[in-house]
Amino acid sequence: MRIALDVFGGDLAPQASIEGVSLFLQENKQAHVLLIGYEDAIQKLMAEHGISTTRIDIIHTTEYIGMDEQPVQAFQQKPKNSISVGLSLVKERKADAFISAGNTGAMLVGASLILSPIKGVQRPTIGTYYPQKGGAFAYLLDVGLNMDCKPEHLVGFAQLGSTYMRVMHHIGSPRVALLNVGQERGKGNQLTKKVYELLSRQNDIYFIGNIEGRDLHNQIAEVIVCDGFLGNILLKHAEAIYDLFKDRIDVNIFNYELYGGTPILGIEGVAIIGHGISNRTAFKNMLHKAAELVEKKLIENIQSDFEKKYVLR
Amino acid sequence: MRIALDVFGGDLAPQASIEGVSLFLQENKQAHVLLIGYEDAIQKLMAEHGISTTRIDIIHTTEYIGMDEQPVQAFQQKPKNSISVGLSLVKERKADAFISAGNTGAMLVGASLILSPIKGVQRPTIGTYYPQKGGAFAYLLDVGLNMDCKPEHLVGFAQLGSTYMRVMHHIGSPRVALLNVGQERGKGNQLTKKVYELLSRQNDIYFIGNIEGRDLHNQIAEVIVCDGFLGNILLKHAEAIYDLFKDRIDVNIFNYELYGGTPILGIEGVAIIGHGISNRTAFKNMLHKAAELVEKKLIENIQSDFEKKYVLR
Repeated sequence: MRIALDVFGGDLAPQASIEGVSLFLQENKQAHVLLIGYEDAIQKLMAEHGISTTRIDIIHTTEYIGMDEQPVQAFQQKPKNSISVGLSLVKERKADAFISAGNTGAMLVGASLILSPIKGVQRPTIGTYYPQKGGAFAYLLDVGLNMDCKPEHLVGFAQLGSTYMRVMHHIGSPRVALLNVGQERGKGNQLTKKVYELLSRQNDIYFIGNIEGRDLHNQIAEVIVCDGFLGNILLKHAEAIYDLFKDRIDVNIFNYELYGGTPILGIEGVAIIGHGISNRTAFKNMLHKAAELVEKKLIENIQSDFEKKYVLR
Repeated sequence: MRIALDVFGGDLAPQASIEGVSLFLQENKQAHVLLIGYEDAIQKLMAEHGISTTRIDIIHTTEYIGMDEQPVQAFQQKPKNSISVGLSLVKERKADAFISAGNTGAMLVGASLILSPIKGVQRPTIGTYYPQKGGAFAYLLDVGLNMDCKPEHLVGFAQLGSTYMRVMHHIGSPRVALLNVGQERGKGNQLTKKVYELLSRQNDIYFIGNIEGRDLHNQIAEVIVCDGFLGNILLKHAEAIYDLFKDRIDVNIFNYELYGGTPILGIEGVAIIGHGISNRTAFKNMLHKAAELVEKKLIENIQSDFEKKYVLR
């Protein structure tokens, strides 16, 4: 087994990458690692960290794609960049795998330029583990590779996710759910309505139906599919949530019961929708909210703002 | 000021709604409340809770739309349902506002049937407060009323959100951000690319550009716009997060640094993308992950699964 690594990719590289290699080789006694980057610098780092093993090869290159470089241009201008070198090693079967924490866009573009899609796969994709109550994980995909998706693309993601969870986590027949705004068939936007119909007809995918945002952590499925636009926003949001809560922010900021209801905006009148599980405090707050909306003349202000817009055009 | 309330709407109603009215009338010394529902039952409840005030009127009706009823059908079969009665009071200016915690779909359908859109508003919308670091709030909209949106609909949401935050929170010129997968102009799906261009040309909206999922709580904007499909999933997700964290779940389940990288699925070879801020543990985990993907023959399994799909068709 030979694993190639982009030594200088990542904000904390090359120190973090070299240290990671050192730790890995202590724990895995078979694999070889191919370090891609400037040879002299790598040898100096290895000496500094006391790494000497027969299971490391250095693949010398002096070109790198920066974190902010435009991928397509960078590939044209720097044909020997570390990402191209690594992906080519995989293509030529000189490496079994390639890892880079460098420019994500460059990895995605490079992978599609240098490696072929597997036969039958319309759209390669990337997913992420999504934490579940009780310590389990679902695989959410796509999380950012395919912005505008056709229904059949999401069927492909469902299959790729199923294979991934079966192979990597020994789940015989992973449950697949479609991320949507309601559980019932017929809910959703044009895309998800069509995906629902297509997934229902797949005999080789265990499709259990729609999953709502509220159930994303409730162990309902092992594979959750969505388009890459939604998945990317959800994933980054989950990362932001982690940042919030590790700072021990007051959890009550997410307690929507406290907020009272939501006015429908844009209609001729104040109509407030309350949460189904509203308690007496929520009802009280909705009444105060209604009074405030009327006192502050929200409707009249909307009328006047849209009248101005109308005139401006 | 006269506020109408759907007394029997909501899981905890009518007890919670009546108690909410009682608390509200103690705190607000001017407003009148119109209680919509079965008169005898309401009077019994008021007596039980010791409520007697000259500022309450009862609007008698015996028809209700249940939480699980299909809205359009329900409106046809029950013309005197409490939601229609309340919205009609607003339309006829017998009430200044109407509140219901009952069937949300029925409120939305009813509002569009009974109340007109404000001139210039193409699509009425609903938003929600979205908690920010430091205790502030942004207004996120649409959160579920409009599933498939045209670019100009999101421009309308931006205006409605701006007016709302100006009027209700005294923010002179609310910053408006477009929810997207990257900050730069040109990022996103077909919808957000067009919305970006349209919002850039609005002189009466203070458009600050795209906001990513990771910045949703970072006080970057007071108004955040997206289509109702995405907004609904985000909102329900935020509610689920609250449920997770109030149970004091280990925050580390959202620590994506621990997971190592993500393989690109569907290409002929193992290529793993690491997080830009990968530390040595992340690098070590990516190397283990690469070894595992190779050992478990993920690529070969995907090839075989998609070959079967190909044959099945």
